[in-house]
Amino acid sequence: MSGTDHAKAAEWGGPQPAVILVEPQMGENIGAAARAMWNFGLERMRIVNPRDGWPNQKAVTMSSGAARVIDAVQVTQTTEEAVQDLNYVFATTARGRDLTKPVVTPERAMEQARAMVAEGQNVGILFGPERSGLENPDIARANAIISVPVNPAFASLNLAQCVLLLAYEWRRQQGDAAPEVLELAGTKHAEAIEIQKLSETLEARLESVGFFWPDHKAESMVTNLRNMISRMPLTQADVRMFHGVIKSLADKHPKSR
Amino acid sequence: MSGTDHAKAAEWGGPQPAVILVEPQMGENIGAAARAMWNFGLERMRIVNPRDGWPNQKAVTMSSGAARVIDAVQVTQTTEEAVQDLNYVFATTARGRDLTKPVVTPERAMEQARAMVAEGQNVGILFGPERSGLENPDIARANAIISVPVNPAFASLNLAQCVLLLAYEWRRQQGDAAPEVLELAGTKHAEAIEIQKLSETLEARLESVGFFWPDHKAESMVTNLRNMISRMPLTQADVRMFHGVIKSLADKHPKSR
Repeated sequence: MSGTDHAKAAEWGGPQPAVILVEPQMGENIGAAARAMWNFGLERMRIVNPRDGWPNQKAVTMSSGAARVIDAVQVTQTTEEAVQDLNYVFATTARGRDLTKPVVTPERAMEQARAMVAEGQNVGILFGPERSGLENPDIARANAIISVPVNPAFASLNLAQCVLLLAYEWRRQQGDAAPEVLELAGTKHAEAIEIQKLSETLEARLESVGFFWPDHKAESMVTNLRNMISRMPLTQADVRMFHGVIKSLADKHPKSR
Repeated sequence: MSGTDHAKAAEWGGPQPAVILVEPQMGENIGAAARAMWNFGLERMRIVNPRDGWPNQKAVTMSSGAARVIDAVQVTQTTEEAVQDLNYVFATTARGRDLTKPVVTPERAMEQARAMVAEGQNVGILFGPERSGLENPDIARANAIISVPVNPAFASLNLAQCVLLLAYEWRRQQGDAAPEVLELAGTKHAEAIEIQKLSETLEARLESVGFFWPDHKAESMVTNLRNMISRMPLTQADVRMFHGVIKSLADKHPKSR
């Protein structure tokens, strides 16, 4: 992905929600979740009662590049212990239909998390085991349920994908993503004088071959041409190339022909 | 994930961007990309010169559940052919640094795509081969580059994850994700009369055990208690349970004690 040049490393890190994996089964999925987190700057992972114990070599291997997340994992035996210092807990789940609980989108959830974290509150997001998802006793510990708006005909997000979407939304809510920029590749935006000279050169060449005809339309033709050129986001390199193009074309239509 | 109950199937489908995989190497990744798309309702996949030919059994196997995407794939030999009917093309890439091109976030890109698709324009998103990403000649065919705001210290999105984030953003831009709702699990919000009776019952019980004391603070204590109860989002089931709790507790503090 592009964009790494735009982000400032110093803006990453800092207070953030904890990602809590409840009874994950496969070490590979723990590692993939760590990578998904770290892609968007999340690094607080907690694991409740991992099936294959801890540390887990498969998690370490799969987390390649995101080792700092795995190295700092906090493991607890129960969900109760994992959430005890949290002020607000979200549960990601497809279940919990028999519990009364607010249901929010990832967007709203991370918007809310941003506000709470900014106030110094400790926020966590619960993710259930790969196949079964969170059980009701764990969902009951959460303040709200996060619902990803997936296709009702096909809802197949795996653990790491679900973590990825939440981490992405957390990052997006920081609001410092680069706005649209023009990648300039070593050149600069042309200055107005350069654009003006380009227009004049082009007009002169076109004039010389009788382009602005009939006479009563010439003025509006010139205006339209200038307008077209002025709304093009031309760089200095573009302007040089454009001059070359005009010259090449025009030299095949000498005035004397 | 929850949320499938909120979405209306009829709102899915319809005009949408094409996802164009340029020279993908692994059939598994094609299948995973198809699943990522269909999770958020995208189903127009095009593939340019797949390394292992087409059809690809591994793609079919991995796409399990999203077969409709694989079944409808359009395969071309060149990127030029794949984009020829498109009005606007986005390129997802970490490269292209030596090309002058607008760079946008997934959010802005899909916002723009939504507007263009709504006008009847045909939009596509190019994804490069797994390891190398898009080459400059392909990036040059795009109108803009999509940059995912990943962690500068760790940018490791794979093909299917990148497709997933774009598909998620496309869906998010449709703006019909369920707002926050309270999952009521078979019960209803309590009526005001039920809340009032609950307050009265609680107050009577508390009064009987001398809770509202000293006398000059009694009135404000009652007000605070009523206020606390009235701002709780109680359901009819909650109210019944609450009555049970009060009764149970109060029966251990008989007035006569």
